Amino acid sequence: MQVGTNLPKVGTFNRAVVLEAIQVSDGISRVQIAERTGLTAQTVSVIVRRLLEEGLVIEDGSLPSSGGKPRTILRVDPAAGYAVGIHFDPGEVSYVLADLAGEPVTKLHTELRPGLSPEAVVRQMAATARNMLQDAGVPDGKVLGIGLACPGPLDADGVMNDPPRLPGWDEVPIKRLLEEHTGFPVTFDNDASAAAIGERWAGLARSTPSFAYLYLGTGIGGGLFLDNQIYRGRSLNAAEFGHITVVPEGPECYCGNRGCVEAVCCPSAVEATFRARLATGVPAPADHAAICAAAAAGDPLAVEVIGEVAARLADAAVSIVNMLDIDLLVLGGPAMHEAAGIYRQVIADAVATRPLARRLHKVQVEISPIAADAAAIGAASLVFHATYAPRLGTLLTS
Amino acid sequence: MQVGTNLPKVGTFNRAVVLEAIQVSDGISRVQIAERTGLTAQTVSVIVRRLLEEGLVIEDGSLPSSGGKPRTILRVDPAAGYAVGIHFDPGEVSYVLADLAGEPVTKLHTELRPGLSPEAVVRQMAATARNMLQDAGVPDGKVLGIGLACPGPLDADGVMNDPPRLPGWDEVPIKRLLEEHTGFPVTFDNDASAAAIGERWAGLARSTPSFAYLYLGTGIGGGLFLDNQIYRGRSLNAAEFGHITVVPEGPECYCGNRGCVEAVCCPSAVEATFRARLATGVPAPADHAAICAAAAAGDPLAVEVIGEVAARLADAAVSIVNMLDIDLLVLGGPAMHEAAGIYRQVIADAVATRPLARRLHKVQVEISPIAADAAAIGAASLVFHATYAPRLGTLLTS
Repeated sequence: MQVGTNLPKVGTFNRAVVLEAIQVSDGISRVQIAERTGLTAQTVSVIVRRLLEEGLVIEDGSLPSSGGKPRTILRVDPAAGYAVGIHFDPGEVSYVLADLAGEPVTKLHTELRPGLSPEAVVRQMAATARNMLQDAGVPDGKVLGIGLACPGPLDADGVMNDPPRLPGWDEVPIKRLLEEHTGFPVTFDNDASAAAIGERWAGLARSTPSFAYLYLGTGIGGGLFLDNQIYRGRSLNAAEFGHITVVPEGPECYCGNRGCVEAVCCPSAVEATFRARLATGVPAPADHAAICAAAAAGDPLAVEVIGEVAARLADAAVSIVNMLDIDLLVLGGPAMHEAAGIYRQVIADAVATRPLARRLHKVQVEISPIAADAAAIGAASLVFHATYAPRLGTLLTS
Repeated sequence: MQVGTNLPKVGTFNRAVVLEAIQVSDGISRVQIAERTGLTAQTVSVIVRRLLEEGLVIEDGSLPSSGGKPRTILRVDPAAGYAVGIHFDPGEVSYVLADLAGEPVTKLHTELRPGLSPEAVVRQMAATARNMLQDAGVPDGKVLGIGLACPGPLDADGVMNDPPRLPGWDEVPIKRLLEEHTGFPVTFDNDASAAAIGERWAGLARSTPSFAYLYLGTGIGGGLFLDNQIYRGRSLNAAEFGHITVVPEGPECYCGNRGCVEAVCCPSAVEATFRARLATGVPAPADHAAICAAAAAGDPLAVEVIGEVAARLADAAVSIVNMLDIDLLVLGGPAMHEAAGIYRQVIADAVATRPLARRLHKVQVEISPIAADAAAIGAASLVFHATYAPRLGTLLTS
């Protein structure tokens, strides 16, 4: 049942709407904000004055206006706040210290030593984050929080729930542990949702109402923004695009399903398929990155294998478009490698020719410009998004 | 970019929230409304007074309360308004005159004579709707409008856009034509979305936050409510579950895709598969309804064919759950026939054992109690939903 709203919530929501309008623009005037948000000039003026006082927004020159006085340009002050984004992948941990504009200030990668206890891993994460802040000279007062992108499933309290590629990590309250060890609030999500939020905050999808993010990493996941709002689902496990069935009765997936996108298209599956088809004795690319590079260079077997993967990803993409009728599909994640161009081409062709509403609504397909670091930058964006984005949920009572 | 809100919109929205709280309950007090909607007792009281004055809501007895005076029970007055729902299927047209509670007052079916011009079909629809209202003694002042469920794709102005099973219906402005011929406002949607809205207004999903409706008719479609809101997509063509790819490189679908749910599971596909496997000379069920009945009765070939259809529907259902993390999947539509129980069983088993978040969030699978009339009752509900439901869109400026 839908709950209601009230006046204080309207104030908070409209403040976030104005801040977002400034954040997604490359400089914007008060008049333009009013036009784009539907708010009155007076409301915009009051909110902007407060944002200036708080130092979140700065005045940065002026635009000529048609008659009357020139219009002052407003921008978010990148130095108004910082967040550390941590991408916890089963293989390695990536860190980004990002400013409020979502721009990385420093980056770091560490290998994840097998066999470390969850407690030890979290201690190491906390120490690294603290060191990055210290080295960059960011005082605690400017730290909005830590963003953590980690393997799902996750529950609403930030407890990791038996992630498939991390044995021993069942029922680990990683949010609470990381808060205890850093002293900062922790915002968490799975890697793919984080990447989608990063794309919204600072990437390709800053002003696109509805988009899906197809994330290729060790596993395959996704993120969704529908009608300008992140869509997480009822248990925070929506957008699991990796578990769309694309080959009925196909290979078993760890999830209990058969023929999932992930079971057929993830890096380890690509390596296995490639090896199985290789003539004996032929020297061959050793790993997934090399297979992607070989495909991009035209090696026939690599082209065949990556082409099949692209075709299954395209099947999933067509289903996503038929189901969600979005504006944009972003492809990203560390496992795109040099196959990104092939994936984009095959998927773009499919969503241009196959969805039911293709004549009524064109869907863009784009490669994330920050594909490889998408989850870590996205993790930092989790903090900014949770703090500042206009979420309809905050408008509602209860 | 997210737009803002303002005070008058908050008032309209909260009014709809209170009306919905009354509509979905089987009698509710003011105190309970405040509890469930998060609104203050005073806000609820003011809104209820107006709803009583307008005659939309009635007081109907009282509930004992713990101490203090008994609480008055509020209900929506079913006789406060009426709508005619029209389900325009390529094969026939179904009509329902429904009261504000979504209960059918009268029903009617007419065959669609092949070769009639769109203009002639609309004229016949208008005359039939007018006659139903007259026969039931509903005065024009009590008619909230006409709801029309018709084959997609549809654009935002209610123009039919070359529906696959209705040659000659390209660029037909059916909403405008029906408004001209009836003199009533027309609310339109595709049949499957209408069925979902009917289930929300008066059926199984009245207070379920997020559900999907899988609609089996001449074609296969769907509808979506996410976080208590209908989700239509950017071009009003979301939830096309019939065009999820379930058999890669499978049979061609009219949509331009291959191996769609619809191409494999729709009634004509079931009939074709059944006939192709039948030993020559064996007497056999003639049509889809008979094949469904034979499967329910245990006929081995019918069980095999319907079982395969159920398995592909289950693949699609698992993808829907993995993508959207919903609470409930409703199965309905006129082509369920006696196979409904088989479909429910196979799909319920799949969504209990295969989605990634199955341990965190259980998904119900239910058969619509109004499966056969779902689209026509849903069409009438389109009018009630558009007039009264608390839609977040109405809360936002522009």
